[in-house]
Amino acid sequence: MTKRASWPSPLNIFFLLERLKSMARHIIQCPSCNHEIELYQNPLPTVDIIIEIESGGIVLVKRKNPPYGWALPGGFVDYGESLEEAAIREAKEETDLDVKLNKQLHTYSDPKRDPRHHSISTVYIAKAKGEPQAKDDAIEIGIFNESNLPEKIAFDHRSILDDYFKRNTLAL
Amino acid sequence: MTKRASWPSPLNIFFLLERLKSMARHIIQCPSCNHEIELYQNPLPTVDIIIEIESGGIVLVKRKNPPYGWALPGGFVDYGESLEEAAIREAKEETDLDVKLNKQLHTYSDPKRDPRHHSISTVYIAKAKGEPQAKDDAIEIGIFNESNLPEKIAFDHRSILDDYFKRNTLAL
Repeated sequence: MTKRASWPSPLNIFFLLERLKSMARHIIQCPSCNHEIELYQNPLPTVDIIIEIESGGIVLVKRKNPPYGWALPGGFVDYGESLEEAAIREAKEETDLDVKLNKQLHTYSDPKRDPRHHSISTVYIAKAKGEPQAKDDAIEIGIFNESNLPEKIAFDHRSILDDYFKRNTLAL
Repeated sequence: MTKRASWPSPLNIFFLLERLKSMARHIIQCPSCNHEIELYQNPLPTVDIIIEIESGGIVLVKRKNPPYGWALPGGFVDYGESLEEAAIREAKEETDLDVKLNKQLHTYSDPKRDPRHHSISTVYIAKAKGEPQAKDDAIEIGIFNESNLPEKIAFDHRSILDDYFKRNTLAL
C-alpha cells in the first residue's frame, strides 16, 4: 500500500501558526525582579567566506558544536562592523588565514537555513596563501574542491557551494 | 594661513573609543522595576528596492520622517521572513506596486550609512507595471532616471544608485 500525501490537520496548522508567531518573539527575564520582557527580534546578520587557496581548493571547517558537519568559515557581524571587516576577522579567527576579499557572492536569508535561529548570511569569495589551521569552533580543517566535498555539510552551505561552483563554471 | 591636518588629541581619542564601545551596547529599562538591562545588539537587516517601471525610470519616495530627502523604497526585515519576501512586502507598503524581483544588486553595511543605527541593506532590482502611490512614510513619490535624480537623497542611496546605473551602463 502506498502512502498518499495529505493536507495537515487543522490542529497541526494551529500549532504551526503558533510556532511561526513565537519565532518573532524573544522573551527575556529581568535579572533584578524576574519580570518577563518581550523584545522585538530581528534576523541576525552573519558572514560566510569561500576561501580560495592559492595552491587550489577551498577551505571548510568541521564543526565542534551542533549543527555538526563541515561548514564554510563564518560568524556573526558585530554592531558597528562592516560585512567586509567581519568576513576578514572571522576568516582569521577560524582558519588563521589572512584573506583578501574578492567579491560578494550573494546574501542568503531562508529562515530555515540555520536550525538555531533566523540568520542572514552574506557570502564572500576570498583568496589566501598558506596553510589553514583549525581554531576556535573547529575540530578539523580541510581543503576541498567540487569533486571531493565532504558528505555532511551543515546549514545551507552545500547549496551555497553549488551556487559558487556553478558560477565559476558559467564564467569559463 | 593654511590649516594643517593634525592628530586628534588623546582626549578626543578617548571619547571616540567610548562612543564606539557604546555603539555595541543597547540598554533597556525593565518596565516593572526600572532596572537597567544591557543587551547584546546586532546590526539590523533591511532591504531596499530599485523598482524599474515598465514605461521607464525608477521609483523614489520623499521621506516624511528624518533623515529627510528622497530614498529608495525599503524597510526592516522581519524575523522569520526572507529578504525576498521583505522586499516584495516593503515595495507594496511604500509604493502600492506589485513588484517582480529580478536580482540582488549588493548588500551594503557601512555602520555610518544610516545616522540612526547600524543597518545592513540588501538591495534588489525589481520590475513593476502601473502608477506608484505614496503610502505610509512618504509625502511624495516620483519616477526618476539617471539624468534627473533629486538633489537631496537620504542614507547611502545615491551611492547605491551610482552602483546600479554604472552596472547597467557596463552591461550594455
